[in-house]
Amino acid sequence: MYRVDLNSDLGESFGRYTLGSDDKIIPLITSANVACGYHASDPVVMEKTVARAKEAGIRVGAHPGFPDLMGFGRRNMNVSGPEAKAYTLYQLGALHGFCKAQGMTLQHVKPHGAFYNMAAKDYALSKAICEAIYEFDKNLIVLALSGGELSRAALNMGLRTAQEVFADRAYEEDGTLVDRRKEGAMITDEEEAIARVSRMVKEKKVTAITGKDIPIEADSVCVHGDGAKALAFVERIRKTLTEEGITICSLDEIV
Amino acid sequence: MYRVDLNSDLGESFGRYTLGSDDKIIPLITSANVACGYHASDPVVMEKTVARAKEAGIRVGAHPGFPDLMGFGRRNMNVSGPEAKAYTLYQLGALHGFCKAQGMTLQHVKPHGAFYNMAAKDYALSKAICEAIYEFDKNLIVLALSGGELSRAALNMGLRTAQEVFADRAYEEDGTLVDRRKEGAMITDEEEAIARVSRMVKEKKVTAITGKDIPIEADSVCVHGDGAKALAFVERIRKTLTEEGITICSLDEIV
Amino acid sequence: MYRVDLNSDLGESFGRYTLGSDDKIIPLITSANVACGYHASDPVVMEKTVARAKEAGIRVGAHPGFPDLMGFGRRNMNVSGPEAKAYTLYQLGALHGFCKAQGMTLQHVKPHGAFYNMAAKDYALSKAICEAIYEFDKNLIVLALSGGELSRAALNMGLRTAQEVFADRAYEEDGTLVDRRKEGAMITDEEEAIARVSRMVKEKKVTAITGKDIPIEADSVCVHGDGAKALAFVERIRKTLTEEGITICSLDEIV
Amino acid sequence: MYRVDLNSDLGESFGRYTLGSDDKIIPLITSANVACGYHASDPVVMEKTVARAKEAGIRVGAHPGFPDLMGFGRRNMNVSGPEAKAYTLYQLGALHGFCKAQGMTLQHVKPHGAFYNMAAKDYALSKAICEAIYEFDKNLIVLALSGGELSRAALNMGLRTAQEVFADRAYEEDGTLVDRRKEGAMITDEEEAIARVSRMVKEKKVTAITGKDIPIEADSVCVHGDGAKALAFVERIRKTLTEEGITICSLDEIV
Repeated sequence: MYRVDLNSDLGESFGRYTLGSDDKIIPLITSANVACGYHASDPVVMEKTVARAKEAGIRVGAHPGFPDLMGFGRRNMNVSGPEAKAYTLYQLGALHGFCKAQGMTLQHVKPHGAFYNMAAKDYALSKAICEAIYEFDKNLIVLALSGGELSRAALNMGLRTAQEVFADRAYEEDGTLVDRRKEGAMITDEEEAIARVSRMVKEKKVTAITGKDIPIEADSVCVHGDGAKALAFVERIRKTLTEEGITICSLDEIV
Repeated sequence: MYRVDLNSDLGESFGRYTLGSDDKIIPLITSANVACGYHASDPVVMEKTVARAKEAGIRVGAHPGFPDLMGFGRRNMNVSGPEAKAYTLYQLGALHGFCKAQGMTLQHVKPHGAFYNMAAKDYALSKAICEAIYEFDKNLIVLALSGGELSRAALNMGLRTAQEVFADRAYEEDGTLVDRRKEGAMITDEEEAIARVSRMVKEKKVTAITGKDIPIEADSVCVHGDGAKALAFVERIRKTLTEEGITICSLDEIV
Repeated sequence: MYRVDLNSDLGESFGRYTLGSDDKIIPLITSANVACGYHASDPVVMEKTVARAKEAGIRVGAHPGFPDLMGFGRRNMNVSGPEAKAYTLYQLGALHGFCKAQGMTLQHVKPHGAFYNMAAKDYALSKAICEAIYEFDKNLIVLALSGGELSRAALNMGLRTAQEVFADRAYEEDGTLVDRRKEGAMITDEEEAIARVSRMVKEKKVTAITGKDIPIEADSVCVHGDGAKALAFVERIRKTLTEEGITICSLDEIV
Repeated sequence: MYRVDLNSDLGESFGRYTLGSDDKIIPLITSANVACGYHASDPVVMEKTVARAKEAGIRVGAHPGFPDLMGFGRRNMNVSGPEAKAYTLYQLGALHGFCKAQGMTLQHVKPHGAFYNMAAKDYALSKAICEAIYEFDKNLIVLALSGGELSRAALNMGLRTAQEVFADRAYEEDGTLVDRRKEGAMITDEEEAIARVSRMVKEKKVTAITGKDIPIEADSVCVHGDGAKALAFVERIRKTLTEEGITICSLDEIV
């Protein structure tokens, strides 16, 4: 039986600032990556976000980012290994606090933005992140770019690891994402995007930008809730994948 | 048998900034209040502080403060109840993350600075703080100003509550601390200060600034590690109380 | 000839977060209070906001707030006098930097949120704020609650002072704003609100909540740009006041 | 006549945290780089630091850094050009506020830590920084790594530019600093260090790590005030350079 998880970034509001449409995306996904106060969110938002996820019956994971609220965690920062480990543990623990208080079990950890991108290419950084997760709770799932360094570090450490794919991104032959600035980097045709995901899940293959088929694992698809078009796409991908015999379920049921 | 705990604020360094002499005060105390990144500390400091406490065999508690690094959490802020609750849970969870990773059990929670002082006088604020603690872990001890509103809220909620006293502060007849600006607010004679603590522990009494004896509970004494004089006082109070038959032990063994 | 300024808070976006509809409110007002990075805004937003104001030909002022991004500067903080002075100077200087770079002259300073409200009732705090303004540039206008302590401190220091009134708020007999929680605190009828402002400008009088007429100065009216209703009200008050012979112009032409 | 400036980073304390020995280093230097609240310092510290510099008769410059208090601005961050420009302008303006209030003229701008190091190698980033300086005040001096990209960008923009050298660092043949991790990167012999600076000032030459003499400009030497040894070195370099006929004076008298 084929299974795939749909994950999305939630709880990114901060103080007086509202971001995203959490209420609309929550019913469509199975795993929520909840911001932990470093690149976005604050404690009041975190508490509400965990409550909403609980109410909707979806699973939550920590979404730790760089300590860069002004840059929304999207700017590379050369933090050291001990810093990366401690920042992960801090944010992980903070979100766990809200989960524990509400009787929710934390399901996974997915680094955010530049932290995610840097980890995908940097084994030492990934190892530091995984050490935090391992020490905190060996049962947590690491949600990482399919085939990237974070995924490799997590597997090497014996952690449950979920491979994440992107419906709208092209892949290089080595399995890395094609740089956004390169022509053909984005899959703009929605039907094609969904067909690619379906094939990744069922055949564990995707056609690279070069035209060559490459192997790929797809445990989870990253989706977005910003705007009507994005939400419509999530509904569409849910429907199509389900029709093709793929069960949409949380990471915990897959990994 | 008489028992009392000695608690001190630790882990207040931040990034490039070093504060306090944690290494020197740790061997002298039984409970460490560890800053959680809001009024002081950062994840790297928190990890190290928990490790040091573990090594020394003392217990740790969360020391949540207002989100005011610039003011070191010492300035009153009129946060709402839900904010106070969420801020407590966030910081509590974050510190618990480091404890869990190192196999340490969190012992207590003591709000910091202005958060502590405001809570001592504000039952609604105290209730919000206690709700966070109760929801996170009913077994945690609330360390609060002896006889204050936080202590009252914690007791009403059925939480384990430790009454904190100050060796160097005078008390009003109603059990509140004498305002520092008032004459006689500080007990400057060290011998007298220690004798007062001894009596608080053994007789559950202290002489108020008016000269009248009032009832008081003393489960823990707040001590400081800033400077040679402060450290010498901690050594002295430990020695004298021990000689007088009072066992210095952690809150967990008292409450 | 009667004159009044319309002021509004602008530039409150921050990093990835957008707030307000600056583009829509700018053409309707004469003075913009620009956030300076403490309670809202960031340098990129500040630069853009000054550029927009310049383009539209309206005047800008600094809108310093408490260092409380999470609370949007709306929570009382008991900062000391020297802190209030230095925080004002810092934010004032920062905004002036963007103005100077674009050849704009800073017109005024209006504290934000809790900083404004606390200053209106606290002469010592107001004096500290005014000292920063005075030392930086004696020609700056202080925009303050009509008849409040900040206004008094500014006048005593010989600073140009603009009295601010609120169209939608009721006044007590002593000229202070009626507490929002009290019945009748808000003037919900738009026509009445505008008529009150018109009378404040022309007759320097307003009917207090008790029914008694009290004297009041009105150099500027605070308006908001959040939402269609708010924007429609600004258009309406502009139109009506103009029809009644009141010129809408910047503070600099009034004070 | 030979001249050189001695510059040092000052005003790096923050809130409750004290850093550096500003009082001791101030009498020994001619130009102070004052932190502006992003990587270190706060408004109260900035006000005091400007006051101390004024009292001592030395010149002050802005020392803008990355918005990374936790990392003391020492971690590379990939900010965009517009961000770099706006961050520089914000910090520059803020410090200018304190200078203007105290009747001091801002002399120079020197980026801090990772901002300085990245700029030295990145012309586009340097150009963004220089645009901020140019737009704010064309008369400000840019203090930059001798021969680096920031220096080049400043010169190209027609800004007054001061070339900074390091007494304790070895140089590559292309004039860049030898990576600290490489053997021989540090000049540990104090006499040799001072002799090198003397030659840089007088002959405009330094011996690279390869043994080859290379051309170098030296308008200012960076010195430190952390610790007795550092302070003793500053006294020694002052004395020796003076004896060798080199006048120690501020950048403003050199560039």
